[in-house]
Amino acid sequence: MKLSQIAKIIGAEFNGQDMTINSLNTLKDASSDEISFVANSKYVKDIASSNAAAIICDEKTKEFVSTSSVALVVAHPYWQMAVLSEYFAKDAEDFDAPAPKIDESSIVSAKAHIANGATVGKNCTILAGCYVGSGAVIGDNTTLYPNVVIYRDCKIGSDCIIHAGTVIGSDGFGFASNQNGEHKKIYHIGNVVIEDDVEIGSNTSIDRAVFGSTLIKKGTRLDNLIQVAHNCEIGEYSVAAAQSGFAGSSKVGRSSVFGAQSGVAGHLEVAPFNTFAARSGVTKTIKESGKVFAGFPLMDHRAWLKLQGKIAKLLK
Amino acid sequence: MKLSQIAKIIGAEFNGQDMTINSLNTLKDASSDEISFVANSKYVKDIASSNAAAIICDEKTKEFVSTSSVALVVAHPYWQMAVLSEYFAKDAEDFDAPAPKIDESSIVSAKAHIANGATVGKNCTILAGCYVGSGAVIGDNTTLYPNVVIYRDCKIGSDCIIHAGTVIGSDGFGFASNQNGEHKKIYHIGNVVIEDDVEIGSNTSIDRAVFGSTLIKKGTRLDNLIQVAHNCEIGEYSVAAAQSGFAGSSKVGRSSVFGAQSGVAGHLEVAPFNTFAARSGVTKTIKESGKVFAGFPLMDHRAWLKLQGKIAKLLK
Amino acid sequence: MKLSQIAKIIGAEFNGQDMTINSLNTLKDASSDEISFVANSKYVKDIASSNAAAIICDEKTKEFVSTSSVALVVAHPYWQMAVLSEYFAKDAEDFDAPAPKIDESSIVSAKAHIANGATVGKNCTILAGCYVGSGAVIGDNTTLYPNVVIYRDCKIGSDCIIHAGTVIGSDGFGFASNQNGEHKKIYHIGNVVIEDDVEIGSNTSIDRAVFGSTLIKKGTRLDNLIQVAHNCEIGEYSVAAAQSGFAGSSKVGRSSVFGAQSGVAGHLEVAPFNTFAARSGVTKTIKESGKVFAGFPLMDHRAWLKLQGKIAKLLK
Repeated sequence: MKLSQIAKIIGAEFNGQDMTINSLNTLKDASSDEISFVANSKYVKDIASSNAAAIICDEKTKEFVSTSSVALVVAHPYWQMAVLSEYFAKDAEDFDAPAPKIDESSIVSAKAHIANGATVGKNCTILAGCYVGSGAVIGDNTTLYPNVVIYRDCKIGSDCIIHAGTVIGSDGFGFASNQNGEHKKIYHIGNVVIEDDVEIGSNTSIDRAVFGSTLIKKGTRLDNLIQVAHNCEIGEYSVAAAQSGFAGSSKVGRSSVFGAQSGVAGHLEVAPFNTFAARSGVTKTIKESGKVFAGFPLMDHRAWLKLQGKIAKLLK
Repeated sequence: MKLSQIAKIIGAEFNGQDMTINSLNTLKDASSDEISFVANSKYVKDIASSNAAAIICDEKTKEFVSTSSVALVVAHPYWQMAVLSEYFAKDAEDFDAPAPKIDESSIVSAKAHIANGATVGKNCTILAGCYVGSGAVIGDNTTLYPNVVIYRDCKIGSDCIIHAGTVIGSDGFGFASNQNGEHKKIYHIGNVVIEDDVEIGSNTSIDRAVFGSTLIKKGTRLDNLIQVAHNCEIGEYSVAAAQSGFAGSSKVGRSSVFGAQSGVAGHLEVAPFNTFAARSGVTKTIKESGKVFAGFPLMDHRAWLKLQGKIAKLLK
Repeated sequence: MKLSQIAKIIGAEFNGQDMTINSLNTLKDASSDEISFVANSKYVKDIASSNAAAIICDEKTKEFVSTSSVALVVAHPYWQMAVLSEYFAKDAEDFDAPAPKIDESSIVSAKAHIANGATVGKNCTILAGCYVGSGAVIGDNTTLYPNVVIYRDCKIGSDCIIHAGTVIGSDGFGFASNQNGEHKKIYHIGNVVIEDDVEIGSNTSIDRAVFGSTLIKKGTRLDNLIQVAHNCEIGEYSVAAAQSGFAGSSKVGRSSVFGAQSGVAGHLEVAPFNTFAARSGVTKTIKESGKVFAGFPLMDHRAWLKLQGKIAKLLK
């Protein structure tokens, strides 16, 4: 897409030399053929080092844009980024892609749908009602139980088991909002990557990244009815019990253990080798390792037990 | 169905002039060809103004039934209403309805099932494994990702996006119970109406109304794994994050924001323009607007922060 | 499978008379053609009375194995049991089983998949996208709404209704872990049994037992998005509202009532006829009946109300 077209779509002035823009990305990850945006003062510091060809900004932030990037000035950069995201989003399925590549050693039900452009490795079992989208890749020896949905461009490793009804790659819960309270969808250009030897229970939802990848690292075990939001990263050999949830962009270290119905708030980091009791709610970045936590807000598990003792006393 | 037959089914005495009864409804909404019931003293006040042709009541409440309605007296009106609901319920799918109407501009996967009697508007995309029931209507420009289920008679607006595995229109969780602890299903005669420009995440469940409609108003955004029970109403431009739940007949005003894993109890109202932190539990009707709440039971968000401070002190 | 082969697989020494082992089971339930294991000191007491042909044990527990069973000594019995479980697990679907038996009075969508070896009773309705696995049995008059998945060998009673997207029989969340933090899947050899007159909402997950059966007794009502883990037992006429969860091996008595978003921890028992408010978290065995509980940790509902009063006072 031409930069001049983009400027027109988002209502920005642009008189410079035109160029082709191939995608939308964060300031940090954008390459020189991509456009980015700054919509939050927190990210102003990333402008100078960004390789983005152009940056959507407002009157206040335009001064930080270096001469190597084009500044496209609009009143509401986040809203305009959302508007623009639709233009870089792919169709839900690419019906015109080449026929899917399915290794002949794999068993794929005639009632599953492997979209054009998808790839299925060796010795896989894909049961009825499964959907594997365009550009999606399934590794070797992986089993998809009935009605699993893998959205387009998501990658599933080898030796994985995904149980029935689980959805990998649905759009993250992201939108810009205006003064009238209306919401403009942010199309999610990223994907989900599930590494090798991961087992995921039934009716779990893992959203695709807005840019980049939502990542489930090797050896991890996720139970049923779990929410993994866009851009999360779950470390190797981690374990999360049923109905737990991970909010957007949370990063969880390896060998983490989450009890049932626990939750992790967005945009925080959890150091590896910690255990969280059922119903824990992680609300802050955790830098220590090897500990057991409980409660919401989160506290040391012993403190939580002490608190329950105090509460029992209070009631007497 | 003849009123005399109904009397026989529910074991009530009836000697009056027979008539045709076309449906079952609440006292408030019943029209003159419908039967209603009174099973809770809270609704006795609605008897006098009801247009219902007949009212299932017990010995205590029959005196309130005006002469314009027939009183069908039974020992357990709620149980008998449940018994009767089955007779007014439609089959899960109407195989004999006319072939579905699908606008030729829409893309519908050969592996989706559009039931007889369904209607699909213009420029829709309906991917593999989707189910659109008899009498269901999908507006224009709407996308259903794989394995979305729209039960019969539900209405989806235009410009909607529904992600994989989401179920719209399953029966609400309603039944009468007797002294032996047995439960009699209340067949849900109502539907779900999703207005325009609504996006719903993956593996979310929205139940149909027992009578009338469960309503999701325009511009609303629901995340993954959300429960919306029968007869709920979610106001325009509202936002609910993953794993939140709305119990039966709760009514939420416009531009409400619900954090992840929050919950709203049944039969209450939430004024518009309020924000509820993650894990909030709304247990009472909220009449104020523009506030931020947290906790369970619910309190002002600042009070909740203060409480956490007190708890921290208690632990020292 | 020959016992000598098993010894080789798990790395145990075995010089005795060889025999055929037909399955893997608990110490308590193993019959004389099955192998069992002891991996937790809690179960040492079950060794003496076990009928198992062989028992996987370690150096410390081997002395308790009676002369009627073969002791297979390994360093990590739980890990080796997990390794072995794969050999006794059946394929996800048995494509070579005889064609399914479907009573001619039942309606089965051409877009449903009834696997070879499955049985469907009389007057059932099975809508599009449903999956009924090999060896699974569906009773009479049962309705499966679209995209319901019944894994192999699970039994669904008569007069049941299962709503869309619900998964019955996915593998429980079980695995052995080693010192490197890696997890070895325990293949779940058991099944799920749903008795008669049970209604289950949409997008609910009920896991199969590791050995034996996860059991939902007659007349029970489960709402949407509920988690029932492996080896749970839910008593007759019980009721659980949306988003509640039952952890592994919990046993709930008849006529229990669970509010929305409540939870029951694993390996405990709940006496019959109790009610649990929304968000309750049951963390201990409950021996009393006829009570109302609330809170997490759980307390008497009146105590919970009193606690909220104290908290309100604390804030003033």
